[in-house]
Amino acid sequence: MQKYDVIIIGGGINGGSIAYQLSKRNYRVAVLEKERIASEASSAAAGMLGAQVEPRIDGAFFDFARKSRDYFDQLVPEIEQVSDQPVEFLKNGMLRIAFSEEEANMLKERIAWQQEQGEPAEWLSADQVYQMEPELKAEIVGAASFPKDGQVMPAQLTKAFFKGASNLGADIYEFTWVKGLLGKNGVITGVETTSGRFYAEHIVVAAGAFTPHLSLPDGASLPTLTPVKGEILAVRPEKPIITSTIYSPTVYIVPKANGEIFIGATEREGIYDKIVSFESIRRLSAEACRIVPALRSAEWSRAWAGVRPQTIDGLPYLGPHPDFKGLWLAAGHFRNGILLSALTGVWMADQIEGKADHLEWKDAFDPGRHSQKGVIP
Amino acid sequence: MQKYDVIIIGGGINGGSIAYQLSKRNYRVAVLEKERIASEASSAAAGMLGAQVEPRIDGAFFDFARKSRDYFDQLVPEIEQVSDQPVEFLKNGMLRIAFSEEEANMLKERIAWQQEQGEPAEWLSADQVYQMEPELKAEIVGAASFPKDGQVMPAQLTKAFFKGASNLGADIYEFTWVKGLLGKNGVITGVETTSGRFYAEHIVVAAGAFTPHLSLPDGASLPTLTPVKGEILAVRPEKPIITSTIYSPTVYIVPKANGEIFIGATEREGIYDKIVSFESIRRLSAEACRIVPALRSAEWSRAWAGVRPQTIDGLPYLGPHPDFKGLWLAAGHFRNGILLSALTGVWMADQIEGKADHLEWKDAFDPGRHSQKGVIP
Amino acid sequence: MQKYDVIIIGGGINGGSIAYQLSKRNYRVAVLEKERIASEASSAAAGMLGAQVEPRIDGAFFDFARKSRDYFDQLVPEIEQVSDQPVEFLKNGMLRIAFSEEEANMLKERIAWQQEQGEPAEWLSADQVYQMEPELKAEIVGAASFPKDGQVMPAQLTKAFFKGASNLGADIYEFTWVKGLLGKNGVITGVETTSGRFYAEHIVVAAGAFTPHLSLPDGASLPTLTPVKGEILAVRPEKPIITSTIYSPTVYIVPKANGEIFIGATEREGIYDKIVSFESIRRLSAEACRIVPALRSAEWSRAWAGVRPQTIDGLPYLGPHPDFKGLWLAAGHFRNGILLSALTGVWMADQIEGKADHLEWKDAFDPGRHSQKGVIP
Amino acid sequence: MQKYDVIIIGGGINGGSIAYQLSKRNYRVAVLEKERIASEASSAAAGMLGAQVEPRIDGAFFDFARKSRDYFDQLVPEIEQVSDQPVEFLKNGMLRIAFSEEEANMLKERIAWQQEQGEPAEWLSADQVYQMEPELKAEIVGAASFPKDGQVMPAQLTKAFFKGASNLGADIYEFTWVKGLLGKNGVITGVETTSGRFYAEHIVVAAGAFTPHLSLPDGASLPTLTPVKGEILAVRPEKPIITSTIYSPTVYIVPKANGEIFIGATEREGIYDKIVSFESIRRLSAEACRIVPALRSAEWSRAWAGVRPQTIDGLPYLGPHPDFKGLWLAAGHFRNGILLSALTGVWMADQIEGKADHLEWKDAFDPGRHSQKGVIP
Repeated sequence: MQKYDVIIIGGGINGGSIAYQLSKRNYRVAVLEKERIASEASSAAAGMLGAQVEPRIDGAFFDFARKSRDYFDQLVPEIEQVSDQPVEFLKNGMLRIAFSEEEANMLKERIAWQQEQGEPAEWLSADQVYQMEPELKAEIVGAASFPKDGQVMPAQLTKAFFKGASNLGADIYEFTWVKGLLGKNGVITGVETTSGRFYAEHIVVAAGAFTPHLSLPDGASLPTLTPVKGEILAVRPEKPIITSTIYSPTVYIVPKANGEIFIGATEREGIYDKIVSFESIRRLSAEACRIVPALRSAEWSRAWAGVRPQTIDGLPYLGPHPDFKGLWLAAGHFRNGILLSALTGVWMADQIEGKADHLEWKDAFDPGRHSQKGVIP
Repeated sequence: MQKYDVIIIGGGINGGSIAYQLSKRNYRVAVLEKERIASEASSAAAGMLGAQVEPRIDGAFFDFARKSRDYFDQLVPEIEQVSDQPVEFLKNGMLRIAFSEEEANMLKERIAWQQEQGEPAEWLSADQVYQMEPELKAEIVGAASFPKDGQVMPAQLTKAFFKGASNLGADIYEFTWVKGLLGKNGVITGVETTSGRFYAEHIVVAAGAFTPHLSLPDGASLPTLTPVKGEILAVRPEKPIITSTIYSPTVYIVPKANGEIFIGATEREGIYDKIVSFESIRRLSAEACRIVPALRSAEWSRAWAGVRPQTIDGLPYLGPHPDFKGLWLAAGHFRNGILLSALTGVWMADQIEGKADHLEWKDAFDPGRHSQKGVIP
Repeated sequence: MQKYDVIIIGGGINGGSIAYQLSKRNYRVAVLEKERIASEASSAAAGMLGAQVEPRIDGAFFDFARKSRDYFDQLVPEIEQVSDQPVEFLKNGMLRIAFSEEEANMLKERIAWQQEQGEPAEWLSADQVYQMEPELKAEIVGAASFPKDGQVMPAQLTKAFFKGASNLGADIYEFTWVKGLLGKNGVITGVETTSGRFYAEHIVVAAGAFTPHLSLPDGASLPTLTPVKGEILAVRPEKPIITSTIYSPTVYIVPKANGEIFIGATEREGIYDKIVSFESIRRLSAEACRIVPALRSAEWSRAWAGVRPQTIDGLPYLGPHPDFKGLWLAAGHFRNGILLSALTGVWMADQIEGKADHLEWKDAFDPGRHSQKGVIP
Repeated sequence: MQKYDVIIIGGGINGGSIAYQLSKRNYRVAVLEKERIASEASSAAAGMLGAQVEPRIDGAFFDFARKSRDYFDQLVPEIEQVSDQPVEFLKNGMLRIAFSEEEANMLKERIAWQQEQGEPAEWLSADQVYQMEPELKAEIVGAASFPKDGQVMPAQLTKAFFKGASNLGADIYEFTWVKGLLGKNGVITGVETTSGRFYAEHIVVAAGAFTPHLSLPDGASLPTLTPVKGEILAVRPEKPIITSTIYSPTVYIVPKANGEIFIGATEREGIYDKIVSFESIRRLSAEACRIVPALRSAEWSRAWAGVRPQTIDGLPYLGPHPDFKGLWLAAGHFRNGILLSALTGVWMADQIEGKADHLEWKDAFDPGRHSQKGVIP
């Protein structure tokens, strides 16, 4: 029998961030991962920190996202030092291009409310964009420029979190399957695994798309999360051809620190497999080469897929389970798992310590917000 | 909702053999596999068909094993033709070498009772062995020769079973996780999966080491199977250096049809991971090079591991679940999953059809043989 | 110093075929390969045996090609037996589809002269084609059907040739770079390599696109061969979707024995690298999905490239060097290296033995046919 | 026709360093690489910067080596910034352990003359060593500690040099084979390649073990370099188990920044292949587990090999060719290619610019030092 302060189920980026922050605060932490660290969505993402390019409306999500993004400035040097693991953090900005006046207007509105919030955002004419990115050749109306939105290498950041946590004393159990959560009378006290039982005062489920498959006592179940498969590919140009991340309605094109360009991503709802379909290769290559024709001469590298977990309202579950004491959720980050990871670790640690006082976030990300009679749908 | 005659849980070699035999008999079959076909122990095995080299005593297991081995003669041409998938079946014989008189006596006894059963088996003096295998240089007392024990490439045979089944109409669902079995009042009627619910009259669990993690209705559980990790490595000599499989108490050395030599295997109880330890590399390479020094100049190829599921008495569970109607088990093959696969498919199909009349096997492999009050330990 | 009857420079499919045939005839053969067996074009090809689909005109090439194709019927069982290496030979036929009346007329002419030569070939109307291959959905005028044109797995056949030769006594030297050919007064007697000198009465250069880089004594040089890079990709459908190889002016789609579908190939002249460009992925995926839309749901597998060596007139050099006694060429097979390999081995062995009496082939493939004053251009 | 100031033949670490330094000094540089950047010895090395652990005697080599090592302090931040490529530079020190008094005495002498040269070096008793590295369990007499000797990741540093050079304007031609050097009357003016001819005032051969295979005009040849194959393996412990690099007469054990431990290396003279032999796996694993038994539980990762080029006296050739104007050599770095790379770039650039005034180095590394009558042996 193993006894910890906190058990984290899931070896992905958010499990890692939580493990790291709790270890820093001197909690005794165990992480249970069914396979290996960073083997699912956390290593499949493009790694964009699109705090401004992603949110459609002002509100708690935007607030959390931009604060998480800004926190990378402080977190990255710290975690690289603790872990000896580079994460290839770049602050190269994003250009969200518009093909129609309608899109342009939508983006201009977004720029307006983001500027009100004090975030840098600017509308660029087509000519200004072509000057910034001369290899962008598609006919566009213009683009929204979000200069603070950057990127990391997601698998490397995930590993950095776990190496950091481990160096601070956390125990990482790979190849350890959770068969079910233990407890009774509405209190969760432990976890039944293929390596025996683990007990802790707090148990955090950060299992991404696998979250719904964990079983609770008394037939209760964790929230349904819709899997949304994303397919993505990488090419390697001989010389850099774009500087900013280019983000269109149909494709994004992300120049990475290692010289590769990531091109993504599809959204295929309800699919758990990690197969890349030939159609997705066809569509992504056609779209990317249309927008940046210089990509044609880039070297093909590889393609892969990951499964993102989506909640009903698209917002993550970050907080206590509504019906079980001792049980916490940090799941459902959908397309924004990397972006939100920096702050997710801090926010979950704050809540577990009873120090969380940001009411707007509490409400917005409350795992019980859709529940009726003890069932999170 | 999907309705089938038989659902098979598990995309390993025994699930494949059952799916193939039932499809041949015109049942409508679905296979549910959490990842991909042949991704666990079925692709990790060395592929020995050691019907005589493995069993320590006469009895049901020996009987089943040798009949399964003999059935490969008929099955291999058939499945290669139906599936267009070569399985690299070789009948190259096995030499079980003895380092002491004690081992020699144990093997001579085994030869005696196997000869009584009509199986070819012979004791060879050290000189006879050195003549047969001139590169075997370890000081031995002699060896038991089992000329009928052969081998296949296990991942290829697994794929052949599933391609064969699929060509005969079976549906293979990869990336489909089973969350639990459905049913009530002691009758299993379906399966809850990440891709929805599947229903069938018969549900066969052939999930290898993962079998115990499937949950039954009313908190009942499937039998515990001890995981026993096996680590194995492959090298490639420039020219063939041995002909027979050489089997010692500490290591086996298997010359494969593709020119590689497989060297295995460790037995590490209670371990689910698929990590190869440096110690196992050290030990297997030391042992193998001691016995066949010509291996030293062979080219290093790779190392890998798999997890074998072991029952209390070492015999597989092949038959109906003692407490749930409609539920069948074909699991716990331990070190003999490839060898037993040929007959497992036929025997399970016979039982499901109510045609199984081999009482000795029924008793020996009855999943309820250790159960008391509805619990298979 | 090593002395052989014949030295073959090049570990590709034609070097392998020659080594095998000469070993069968009891010559003492050495093969010198700069890297590993089958590491260049021989493992990059699609493996089509397109004896009828490829040639535009009647003549020596067509004659040699169809006889080579026909010889696979006898060679494959023999080489699979000698080498224990399956080569996945399929006789699944080819459909050369026409998108215009002009193409149709060109194909109908070809059918006519091939029928005259006694080869089965037939014009199919669009409806007949759609019936044969229901997943072919492009609007076509019709197709030429060449039922005898089949395929193999090229890397496997190459390995089979070398394993066969080795089993018959040939020595295969991998990682052995040829620095130059040795000899004087117009007689080649040996080879200078990174592993020392090798001598033989006959030296056969079968080095594919690398042939021109070997240096001859006295500043003479081997013929220029234009490198023509071919890029190719593979996908894996869940179930077979086409039966025949579909061959269009822009793309070919080859259903392989292992269930994959190969889609190729570009022709990029003058390029030695083995980089796959993003543009080629884009173009091949667009073309293939247009012709067989069911490919869209196939699983992406991988992409690769190889470099084919092309002579001035597109015909291979198969015969003695015009200026150096003891030196033979078997190079410049361009797109047809796999198809021609079966007969290339026999034909070169016949010539070396002085038994070659097929004058039409001798003239057509004579390495000296373009040479003036001792220079093969 | 392409015209450059300097052509560098070879895409390894020293070619990269020279290309980078010359590009910084505004020369127009071309690099010709037969395959891909960092595909030979430069990616096979362990990456030790063993300026003090390696040299047996004081002199030019020691002087060059320690200055090269010290220059990494300045070079690494610069090249990481110019190239955006981390090189994982660690200054973790080396412990050269002694198993006998004889070895101890040899090391104590070395410490003495190195201290005289102002380099930190210290003799540690066995107990002091066990305290520093508690997992070192072999019975030793003591160890020499060289705290300034560190390490990098060699393939990453090689890529960083070339990305840096490319960002500063150099042209890198991969897949470009050099067929021979062009020129007459003792002046080299260009290079014949598979991609045509290139001309430059200065041509630097930095082709490692392939250097001897390049042909010069008039049948002259480049120096013979003996290939010495090194085999190496990597394991991954769950937690760090050693801090310093441990260097014994039979094996070295290098803890890398990424958490892996590299264990190397064999020295097999005269071998060009990159095959890892089973014997080397056996021997390195036995030795490493004997010295640091905690390695036994580390995860097996992989094994590989590279070929080091060795000169007659073990010192590199760094300077002008004795017989051909315009031709420079930077080859023969043997076991020290990574260590010497930092200064090799600067030193070659200085010589090409006519600014090199370090006479001791000039003499020691002069490519003509063994030549008689224009032949470098």
